[in-house]
Amino acid sequence: MRGMADLLEKCGVAAVHGHAEAANLVYLALYALQHRGQEAAGIVASDGGELRRAAGRGLVAEVFTPERLAGLPGALAIGHNRYATAGGAGLENVQPLLMQTKRGPLALAHNGNLVNAVSLRRSLEQEGAVFHSSSDTEVILQLAARSARPDLAGSLVEALSLVRGAYCLVVAERECVIAARDPYGFRPLSLGRLPGGEPVVASESCAFDLLGAQFERDVAPGELIVFGPGREERSSFPLPKAAPAPCIFEYVYFARPDSQVFGRPVSAVRRGLGEQLALEQPAEADLVVPVPDSGVPAAIGFARAAGLPFDFGLTRNHYVGRTFIEPAQAIRHFGVKVKLNPVRELIAGRRIVLVDDSLVRGTTMAKIVQLVRQAGAREVHVRISCPPTLSPCFYGIDTPTEEELIAARMSVPEIRMTIGADSLGYLSLQGMHRAVRVSVGDFCSACFTGDYPLAVTDRAALSEERRRR
Amino acid sequence: MRGMADLLEKCGVAAVHGHAEAANLVYLALYALQHRGQEAAGIVASDGGELRRAAGRGLVAEVFTPERLAGLPGALAIGHNRYATAGGAGLENVQPLLMQTKRGPLALAHNGNLVNAVSLRRSLEQEGAVFHSSSDTEVILQLAARSARPDLAGSLVEALSLVRGAYCLVVAERECVIAARDPYGFRPLSLGRLPGGEPVVASESCAFDLLGAQFERDVAPGELIVFGPGREERSSFPLPKAAPAPCIFEYVYFARPDSQVFGRPVSAVRRGLGEQLALEQPAEADLVVPVPDSGVPAAIGFARAAGLPFDFGLTRNHYVGRTFIEPAQAIRHFGVKVKLNPVRELIAGRRIVLVDDSLVRGTTMAKIVQLVRQAGAREVHVRISCPPTLSPCFYGIDTPTEEELIAARMSVPEIRMTIGADSLGYLSLQGMHRAVRVSVGDFCSACFTGDYPLAVTDRAALSEERRRR
Amino acid sequence: MRGMADLLEKCGVAAVHGHAEAANLVYLALYALQHRGQEAAGIVASDGGELRRAAGRGLVAEVFTPERLAGLPGALAIGHNRYATAGGAGLENVQPLLMQTKRGPLALAHNGNLVNAVSLRRSLEQEGAVFHSSSDTEVILQLAARSARPDLAGSLVEALSLVRGAYCLVVAERECVIAARDPYGFRPLSLGRLPGGEPVVASESCAFDLLGAQFERDVAPGELIVFGPGREERSSFPLPKAAPAPCIFEYVYFARPDSQVFGRPVSAVRRGLGEQLALEQPAEADLVVPVPDSGVPAAIGFARAAGLPFDFGLTRNHYVGRTFIEPAQAIRHFGVKVKLNPVRELIAGRRIVLVDDSLVRGTTMAKIVQLVRQAGAREVHVRISCPPTLSPCFYGIDTPTEEELIAARMSVPEIRMTIGADSLGYLSLQGMHRAVRVSVGDFCSACFTGDYPLAVTDRAALSEERRRR
Amino acid sequence: MRGMADLLEKCGVAAVHGHAEAANLVYLALYALQHRGQEAAGIVASDGGELRRAAGRGLVAEVFTPERLAGLPGALAIGHNRYATAGGAGLENVQPLLMQTKRGPLALAHNGNLVNAVSLRRSLEQEGAVFHSSSDTEVILQLAARSARPDLAGSLVEALSLVRGAYCLVVAERECVIAARDPYGFRPLSLGRLPGGEPVVASESCAFDLLGAQFERDVAPGELIVFGPGREERSSFPLPKAAPAPCIFEYVYFARPDSQVFGRPVSAVRRGLGEQLALEQPAEADLVVPVPDSGVPAAIGFARAAGLPFDFGLTRNHYVGRTFIEPAQAIRHFGVKVKLNPVRELIAGRRIVLVDDSLVRGTTMAKIVQLVRQAGAREVHVRISCPPTLSPCFYGIDTPTEEELIAARMSVPEIRMTIGADSLGYLSLQGMHRAVRVSVGDFCSACFTGDYPLAVTDRAALSEERRRR
Repeated sequence: MRGMADLLEKCGVAAVHGHAEAANLVYLALYALQHRGQEAAGIVASDGGELRRAAGRGLVAEVFTPERLAGLPGALAIGHNRYATAGGAGLENVQPLLMQTKRGPLALAHNGNLVNAVSLRRSLEQEGAVFHSSSDTEVILQLAARSARPDLAGSLVEALSLVRGAYCLVVAERECVIAARDPYGFRPLSLGRLPGGEPVVASESCAFDLLGAQFERDVAPGELIVFGPGREERSSFPLPKAAPAPCIFEYVYFARPDSQVFGRPVSAVRRGLGEQLALEQPAEADLVVPVPDSGVPAAIGFARAAGLPFDFGLTRNHYVGRTFIEPAQAIRHFGVKVKLNPVRELIAGRRIVLVDDSLVRGTTMAKIVQLVRQAGAREVHVRISCPPTLSPCFYGIDTPTEEELIAARMSVPEIRMTIGADSLGYLSLQGMHRAVRVSVGDFCSACFTGDYPLAVTDRAALSEERRRR
Repeated sequence: MRGMADLLEKCGVAAVHGHAEAANLVYLALYALQHRGQEAAGIVASDGGELRRAAGRGLVAEVFTPERLAGLPGALAIGHNRYATAGGAGLENVQPLLMQTKRGPLALAHNGNLVNAVSLRRSLEQEGAVFHSSSDTEVILQLAARSARPDLAGSLVEALSLVRGAYCLVVAERECVIAARDPYGFRPLSLGRLPGGEPVVASESCAFDLLGAQFERDVAPGELIVFGPGREERSSFPLPKAAPAPCIFEYVYFARPDSQVFGRPVSAVRRGLGEQLALEQPAEADLVVPVPDSGVPAAIGFARAAGLPFDFGLTRNHYVGRTFIEPAQAIRHFGVKVKLNPVRELIAGRRIVLVDDSLVRGTTMAKIVQLVRQAGAREVHVRISCPPTLSPCFYGIDTPTEEELIAARMSVPEIRMTIGADSLGYLSLQGMHRAVRVSVGDFCSACFTGDYPLAVTDRAALSEERRRR
Repeated sequence: MRGMADLLEKCGVAAVHGHAEAANLVYLALYALQHRGQEAAGIVASDGGELRRAAGRGLVAEVFTPERLAGLPGALAIGHNRYATAGGAGLENVQPLLMQTKRGPLALAHNGNLVNAVSLRRSLEQEGAVFHSSSDTEVILQLAARSARPDLAGSLVEALSLVRGAYCLVVAERECVIAARDPYGFRPLSLGRLPGGEPVVASESCAFDLLGAQFERDVAPGELIVFGPGREERSSFPLPKAAPAPCIFEYVYFARPDSQVFGRPVSAVRRGLGEQLALEQPAEADLVVPVPDSGVPAAIGFARAAGLPFDFGLTRNHYVGRTFIEPAQAIRHFGVKVKLNPVRELIAGRRIVLVDDSLVRGTTMAKIVQLVRQAGAREVHVRISCPPTLSPCFYGIDTPTEEELIAARMSVPEIRMTIGADSLGYLSLQGMHRAVRVSVGDFCSACFTGDYPLAVTDRAALSEERRRR
Repeated sequence: MRGMADLLEKCGVAAVHGHAEAANLVYLALYALQHRGQEAAGIVASDGGELRRAAGRGLVAEVFTPERLAGLPGALAIGHNRYATAGGAGLENVQPLLMQTKRGPLALAHNGNLVNAVSLRRSLEQEGAVFHSSSDTEVILQLAARSARPDLAGSLVEALSLVRGAYCLVVAERECVIAARDPYGFRPLSLGRLPGGEPVVASESCAFDLLGAQFERDVAPGELIVFGPGREERSSFPLPKAAPAPCIFEYVYFARPDSQVFGRPVSAVRRGLGEQLALEQPAEADLVVPVPDSGVPAAIGFARAAGLPFDFGLTRNHYVGRTFIEPAQAIRHFGVKVKLNPVRELIAGRRIVLVDDSLVRGTTMAKIVQLVRQAGAREVHVRISCPPTLSPCFYGIDTPTEEELIAARMSVPEIRMTIGADSLGYLSLQGMHRAVRVSVGDFCSACFTGDYPLAVTDRAALSEERRRR
């Protein structure tokens, strides 16, 4: 149930080079990538001389007024959507970061998470570096600023050769934009073309649709593309090769259904997960009901494969915003009721299959099962279109720590009891890969298996930080 | 496609009596009724001595801060959601209206539209009345204030005996709340009970679900219920009887799917409309795609009856708010693209049935058809789950004038050409009634037939006002 | 000490007729009249067809943005500054009031206070009138709306013939502005000319200076001037004559020193009050110190007549706004310290004459005397440039009730002790009139004498209302 | 005329150590120091573990809400008021700066201006330093962060030994606050004691008055005082000694009259400047009129020494805020009229001495002279209580460049003609020093003489920056 999510993606990025309305286009791209981060948004644009930045807390459409966009002239721009997090997240952490270096102003936006940033930061500070933000992203920028290499691309490569972890970066200086993806390719990054041939880079292809741009290809794992000045465009693979490990969870939950990521349309993959789930975990039931909106594609797939009717037995209140106040003292614990309302006439007296894409803490699902029972369901069978989530992600998804992951603490029968369902079925690891049509090992499935393709150097520090939030 | 709607409902109302958190509960009810009006919201509460009002432009969750709610003490409250309208709509028109009369402060909120308010207002002004707002609602209040009857109920009845049109009213004075519905029962109004037995009145039953209240019954056409002081509760039918004519369009479009209105669950009616549509207007096709979100229930019904697969071939951007700025000069005419994105892999090469609940101006549908074609659809068959909309509504739905209603100007083949579909099928009038399971004549279908159950006295003035908007 | 005042003027008004930038000019006039009311401000302008209103809480410069002013086209405008009051004062009371009557839209702004409004309102309500505000001003408007007279001026005269009290009014309908002053002439109202000869009306002449207008004359007590359409300008005296009783307190405290009111420059009158005070209440002292800013002119007069040096022994913090928060728990009772700081080197070891224009509750003066003593003053002699304030005003100044007026409860020696001064001297009633150069009886001095020139019909109700604030 | 000033002070600073309400007290101190900077304000507080920062654009009372102050717990805090500047001044430059270093978080606020910051910054960037702000203050922080010295005080001394220019600093880390003043002592900095003995540091002593603190002594030129942890308090003079050169302009214009700076009460000095001016530049006249509020003390001194009457011939509009909009197209060039209005009856027919504290660009004075003439003055004699301002300041006052300083371009007779006065008299350099009771050379008088006590290393860069504003 997106919006009440226990899993939070770290950000979306976008860049445009060589178009007179670069900042406007990046604004639209961020708008289309809003689902990847709702806490804050920022854009840095360059007119060849100066880099200007506008950023703030809130949704893209709230942060950027026409006046603020008009204050971002120039033919190149990069942008960033930041995920929601509790407290502590000062404005100094809103990206793109923009700082002054010996080569002039430098801006950087980052989707992902570094696994050795804490260590790198400590040694930079020992050498006298002053950090302005608490983000791991600033480590990349500081390393690039210290490089003796004469050009931005060279400095950035030098920085990235020290850095380990997940990153899709867009970097800007006065006349040039660089897009880079880590050698594992954990997070998605795509290259598109505007009608005039100008390049646009974005975390997901749905941004291209809104801009009227054509999807060209994914930025490859380990690839670094330099745009400009002029129409110059240079691709290179300057970093040591690694076995690609794109994040399978992008398919399960994060990416927008109308995007194509890692080579396949997300909507189709999700329906496939639901179909596979129906084969593995059938249910004697009367109706398949999705948990809106995240469970919809898998539920359609499930219903189709199971030969059961599909319907919206839970209505979502589309006006739920981040501003809702729970006013009543007498009436507490609205929780999920503010967002979902069961449709009694569809549910009453029926055996319901409730399909969602994942189960993280389990608390929301427990409330939904209760809502559905109160509306008169005879049986409630919960089906989850991925395996149990056992391990936290250190590559850019803000999962809770093990202690909070219900599947890390309980067996499936225990979870079933906790959420109050008549039955509970997860998709198997093999089934998930079959539905995605890849072999186990081609993708990062660490959150389901605990097998981390890249050692998490600063794991203790990262876990601690997560606990504090 | 709700949110881009060409049809705008005039408002939702709610009231609570005898509960210590009356204003908080009305706030929640308005929240659940947000779909009936997004322009403004207001609440008036009474602590037995003073009536206090908080109101403002915007969504319920934006207008009411905890501080503002805390400033509304007392055990009775009424509230109102106002529909969106262009310009002119000053704050003085935001309801509930609250004014001072000889019997003390009087507050009133109104869903509906009077057909003789202009005439009544003119004669009141001739007698020296001073109007503060331009709303027809103030006429009721002024008439009640002039009544020589000693009590609120009597004064209100005297006022309502002069007034003609559609109204669901909630009225408050210091210790008493009155709910009233016009003798035709054009708009819905329901009575529920809080867990402690306190009455709650709301335009739709979905409000009760959020409050944890039980639906008891509809307020009947022509009924007036007086609540308080104490637990007093008196129902009467003081006005001349009329042949009930509830608005069939509430089923087609306005009411929330999880509500029950006029005795039937909306979601079931809408699925039935889609099933009937499939029988009347079948299509040789591969996939049924709803126009989200308004077309979803009918599309599910259509798919089921037609034996065709159903899927979300159009993705809705859930972050579209009212604040989106179209920034780019180079890229114009986003229109529908900001809100909907086709899922190419579902659409490309396929024959698509596009289902929506109604077709008013036709401009949005033309853009959607174009989007779907650009995504590679082989054929696009548009199906509408109601008959052609021919005539404006004067009973509380803000339809455009005849000149703007596409079906009032064109034949179905012409409309098909205008929207660029391969075929276009509307549900028949008979089919609509069959699906709703009522006889033609039991409901108001004036928007489809031009047969107005109640003569529109001030039609010229009302049409002129609508044109000016 | 203006800004901490215990006395609050009820409002300033302004009007312009026949100038293409009427609303802009009224905005400037209100700006110059800001000292007469800081709670709220409003302007109504007419373009000949429609009357538009912009109003809000706060200072003139805060309420009116360029956009709001641009939304007030037309060649005539009226405006109003509202005095500060605690709570209760809803936006519906912000003037000008703008309402709909049989003759079309009618707007009205009022400086003053009616003494029989409560009674009139009660009888209007009995006849069915609905009041929107709680202001006495609406009574005038409702009476005018009921008049059978065909024209605005006639209707207004009919209304004013029923009304008793203090009023300076500016009234607007589509093509016409009317200025009216009650027969007693309690409050000031002046007529000026813009460079092009267009009339401008304002509470004080300082507004003309900012507009580049010439002061022409006072609007006379009992005079009603009709402006427009065209350049028509008609003066009349339609109401029964009364013995003029302009408010002497305008000289003592309210009017701006650079204004000319009731025929004399305010600054000169105030200096004269200080000179007379020095003659009547001399003090053996070393330095004359004004309580800034209200006591400055009288202190200059006092010092000059007494042959003593004058200096700013109290520094005023000019950045004190209405938004200051007293943050500290440890450090309480800042009170006056936030606004005034003594200049130790001027005060220490010296005998100080502290001059202020009036003493209402006495609490502020007690704190100031304490501040001055703490800064090392050897003696503190308080001199007040008017007689003791004994009685509340019912003609437009928001004085406290008798219970709160220190001079109504205590003798001068008791007051001296309460404020902690070594001596306390008030100006005598005769001395005040001598300084103003008028005979006792020419002016209203009710606040000093209790002799009310016009019976206060609704005194009980008005006192009660004041107590509730 | 403060508020329209052509001279802008760079900032005020304050710090408190060892008091449970440190942030609240610093807030009050900043409030009292508001005259030293109105563009922005910030506070950093430490609770021993974390440093938290709240900062924003606007006046102190606008930036800090009770919520923001409540978010700054801890027993030590530093704060900063920033002067107004045009454009470019991003939020990243609002002080205190707060950054992360190897020793933990470090915050710093600075009043003054460095003369070799541009050079230092360039070499730091060459070594890979990344700058977040464009302020010279960050150079100090970066240098301290690089120091190998184990403690804050040592690191700061190392940094300051490289830095040249004017600085009063307050620096905070987790448990410790440091106050430092440059060896020349250009800007003022004082040490006071709260009632409980806790130290408070502020740019001017008027801050102590509001806090109820006692002035103890000036922080000496070259002194560095370390506060904490506990009640530890260590003074040292770690930098090479220099001949003290406090800024004489603090006396002439900047400091608040109720402050004591550099050992003398400001108000007394200013009156003395006016007295000396009357001796040097007498005028045959009828009335001495100050330009409010900056010219008041000197005008009082002038009048006293000249035996002429003193009065407020110009009324200041106290409601002028930064938000005033000049609305009228027809009426342009309000300029000074919005803020000052002549009192005709005091001025008409008289010979006026107009006293102000300084003359920078001359444009405002020209308008004031014109206003006074239009009000009927027979003669206007302008007297300035300091010598002609010839040279820009590079030690913390934001004077215009030479091209804009009227006295750098014109002789006194030319200036007299330009401002339209009948006579113009400046105080002599010797007279100024006599009034201040110091010898020429004891103070920095570079703005009057061009003799800079400390060479301005980066003069070209600093002048260029000033021109761009």
